[in-house]
Amino acid sequence: MATELAHCTQLTPSGRLRHLLTLTDMSRDLIEELLERAESYLRPPGEPPARDPVLRGRTVANLFFEPSTRTRASFELAAKRLGADVLNLDVNMSSRKKGESVLDTIYTLQAMQVDVFVVRDASAGIPELIAASVEPHVSVLNAGEAAVSHPTQGLLDLMTMHQHKGRFDRLSVVIVGDIARSRVARSAVEGLQIMGTRDIRLVAPPGMTPDEKLYPGTTITSDLDGALPGADVVMALRIQRERMTEKAQMMTTHEYHAKYGLTAERLMRATPDAIVMHPGPMNRDVEIAGDVADGPQSVIVQQVTNGLAMRMAILAMVMEARRDR
Amino acid sequence: MATELAHCTQLTPSGRLRHLLTLTDMSRDLIEELLERAESYLRPPGEPPARDPVLRGRTVANLFFEPSTRTRASFELAAKRLGADVLNLDVNMSSRKKGESVLDTIYTLQAMQVDVFVVRDASAGIPELIAASVEPHVSVLNAGEAAVSHPTQGLLDLMTMHQHKGRFDRLSVVIVGDIARSRVARSAVEGLQIMGTRDIRLVAPPGMTPDEKLYPGTTITSDLDGALPGADVVMALRIQRERMTEKAQMMTTHEYHAKYGLTAERLMRATPDAIVMHPGPMNRDVEIAGDVADGPQSVIVQQVTNGLAMRMAILAMVMEARRDR
Amino acid sequence: MATELAHCTQLTPSGRLRHLLTLTDMSRDLIEELLERAESYLRPPGEPPARDPVLRGRTVANLFFEPSTRTRASFELAAKRLGADVLNLDVNMSSRKKGESVLDTIYTLQAMQVDVFVVRDASAGIPELIAASVEPHVSVLNAGEAAVSHPTQGLLDLMTMHQHKGRFDRLSVVIVGDIARSRVARSAVEGLQIMGTRDIRLVAPPGMTPDEKLYPGTTITSDLDGALPGADVVMALRIQRERMTEKAQMMTTHEYHAKYGLTAERLMRATPDAIVMHPGPMNRDVEIAGDVADGPQSVIVQQVTNGLAMRMAILAMVMEARRDR
Repeated sequence: MATELAHCTQLTPSGRLRHLLTLTDMSRDLIEELLERAESYLRPPGEPPARDPVLRGRTVANLFFEPSTRTRASFELAAKRLGADVLNLDVNMSSRKKGESVLDTIYTLQAMQVDVFVVRDASAGIPELIAASVEPHVSVLNAGEAAVSHPTQGLLDLMTMHQHKGRFDRLSVVIVGDIARSRVARSAVEGLQIMGTRDIRLVAPPGMTPDEKLYPGTTITSDLDGALPGADVVMALRIQRERMTEKAQMMTTHEYHAKYGLTAERLMRATPDAIVMHPGPMNRDVEIAGDVADGPQSVIVQQVTNGLAMRMAILAMVMEARRDR
Repeated sequence: MATELAHCTQLTPSGRLRHLLTLTDMSRDLIEELLERAESYLRPPGEPPARDPVLRGRTVANLFFEPSTRTRASFELAAKRLGADVLNLDVNMSSRKKGESVLDTIYTLQAMQVDVFVVRDASAGIPELIAASVEPHVSVLNAGEAAVSHPTQGLLDLMTMHQHKGRFDRLSVVIVGDIARSRVARSAVEGLQIMGTRDIRLVAPPGMTPDEKLYPGTTITSDLDGALPGADVVMALRIQRERMTEKAQMMTTHEYHAKYGLTAERLMRATPDAIVMHPGPMNRDVEIAGDVADGPQSVIVQQVTNGLAMRMAILAMVMEARRDR
Repeated sequence: MATELAHCTQLTPSGRLRHLLTLTDMSRDLIEELLERAESYLRPPGEPPARDPVLRGRTVANLFFEPSTRTRASFELAAKRLGADVLNLDVNMSSRKKGESVLDTIYTLQAMQVDVFVVRDASAGIPELIAASVEPHVSVLNAGEAAVSHPTQGLLDLMTMHQHKGRFDRLSVVIVGDIARSRVARSAVEGLQIMGTRDIRLVAPPGMTPDEKLYPGTTITSDLDGALPGADVVMALRIQRERMTEKAQMMTTHEYHAKYGLTAERLMRATPDAIVMHPGPMNRDVEIAGDVADGPQSVIVQQVTNGLAMRMAILAMVMEARRDR
């Protein structure tokens, strides 16, 4: 349902970006336009960050129903560097009647002339619900939705791979971790398949295997060592420690590292110039060894820089798409 | 005492607005000036919000001793759209020696050249105490004070009625809810009486009846159906659910809705073009039916828009009144 | 170790301020330059605060691992008045693997092109660790570090004494309170000794006496009345009430006030024009009597104003020192 709804509302009649809810219905052209725009916002370290007055006088509300320091900071700085006023709202809401309360909050902020809502929520469907409810001139950006979608993360991951590998079609990508509960994996795979990547290998430890129907055209395995040969990109996902301690049948962080941790030794199975990615924040020496995280193949810090540039590109493009509405 | 103190300090010698603590001593002229200024800050939806550089280089501190997402956001955006730097301070203070600690916080922020304090507090007298203590060039705005006063809400309510009904003198206004504990009702009635409204009907369920002396010249009743005929404005107040569950002798939310909820059926007893108001956030299907809240007579969303415009007007006018001091 | 590390990294090769971690290795010239710059940012009350576009387009992150309303507000306004975008991050981190998590947070924010980190932490060594880890164009300002260092407080204290007393070399300074756990005392003494003050008297109640090796060249005593005669400056430190109630062997706040509280009677033992200082927030009638705090010799409010001006000066100077790097 969420995807169907998004299909209707995410793009303007002429195919421009109105909301960003999911990558599923995006065209390759639109993603390429976003990559290009985001790269235009990169600057060498130490130079002042790029600024662009396209959101001057506009208001962006960060509505985080699930806490996040990093993603919130990234959106906040992206909006400020585009000249917007930013409203940060960390909202704790009981789940009862949540949908209704969320919409009343949205209508209230919309009445204060908020132009863009950046929404993170632990339950599925909330960004779509909001997008279906706002006025025509208002945009909704999904900043992380349950295990379903994290489209800005997917786009920054594409951007990072593009910088290092150029093309997507002959890329071999390995993603390892709790695939079943990962919105990062979902959005990365959706984006890669749109861009033409055919060789995607999902490595899921027991109990973390996803529904195959959600990942058509990929290889799903629990054998990391067997999946690595030939990989151009190796992405380790963050492991929720809580999940480990809670479930007695699951392995310890030590066991996880032994079997699924990305170590220097294991990384040697991939191509020599494979890049190492992680969405952060990392559990060092659990899903990724410290020396790999800081090593020459790691592009993890660059992902963060790209994330901010990509969020600027998205904000700028939804504001510019207003002319279509 | 609070009112007396306010009398002394709220206006400049020439009658301009220095602080906004209460509506009680305001003149009709001053309120009309505020209404006019606030209307000048309205813009059609989708257009950039109004901006006015009157607070450029100035600092506004939001000092909320009681949490509030909506009112805080409204003041924050109002100040930013006037060019001010905004400092948000959510302060939890134990009640012991509170007055003294509040003043030390105020003196500290005043020494950082804060120009305007926006203060919300659960205990009575704090805004007045602060206003009596700050330097001559500093203004204090009451953003909600115990059950005593909520003057910016009162002014935005007047503004909304004025937009729809034009005149105040022949208006019939019904307010229903926990009148005894409502600062919203207090400020609305004060404002309406200054503007010449004579027919004000306060509908209070048992246990929520206010002290008659606080509401001279009004009709106080517990019969909602009997109060509605002829009403031009019907305002439902937010019910604190906590109060309902705590006190066994009080009714359930279901019973409340049955007897005092504003339903479509009941609304038909008022004049056909009566407007429906609510200060938000709403408990849908408790004090107001969802279809009434979203119906054609509802001006609830417009109240929010007016609230921001009114707060801009107030901030601009206290800054301009500095010339008098 | 912290100091050694700071020695290496705090100044640029040509002796300009890159980070501000401690006062220990600062030259008298550098402190005088800071005092002069900070005084240039002072304005009469009621006038708009000083602004200086030196940080326009730059980003300052307030990273407070220990909560602080006042110091955070002071840095936030200082950065905004210099034109910077400000990111406020109140971070709660468990102590396990803290250093590593802190650095991952720093690398993430650095990748978002944060230019200056303002860091407060309850454990020693964190500001130095961060300063040793950031890229060459990034600056770190210590906003309070365990019981070790609070250099911006030390500088604002010097600035306040300089305004009232002119010279440092013939000054007699009394500091009274929990010297053993006071970063305020540490930084004040370090600064004073650099500026040539030889007569520093530290008055520590039993259980609050510092390690003598940390305070060479000072007089340490537990006799306040004996220390006051001839004092030009009397600084009372904030007492942590928690410490009093927890330890049964320690005195009550009432006993503290009787023996170590700065009262009007006691103040008469100092020179007639002695100034009274306190870093805030005050426990009135514990370490300082209310009438002394508000009396004619008190410069406590002025310390706050100077603090903001000094933080502007520091931010401006680390940004200008970039040319050296």
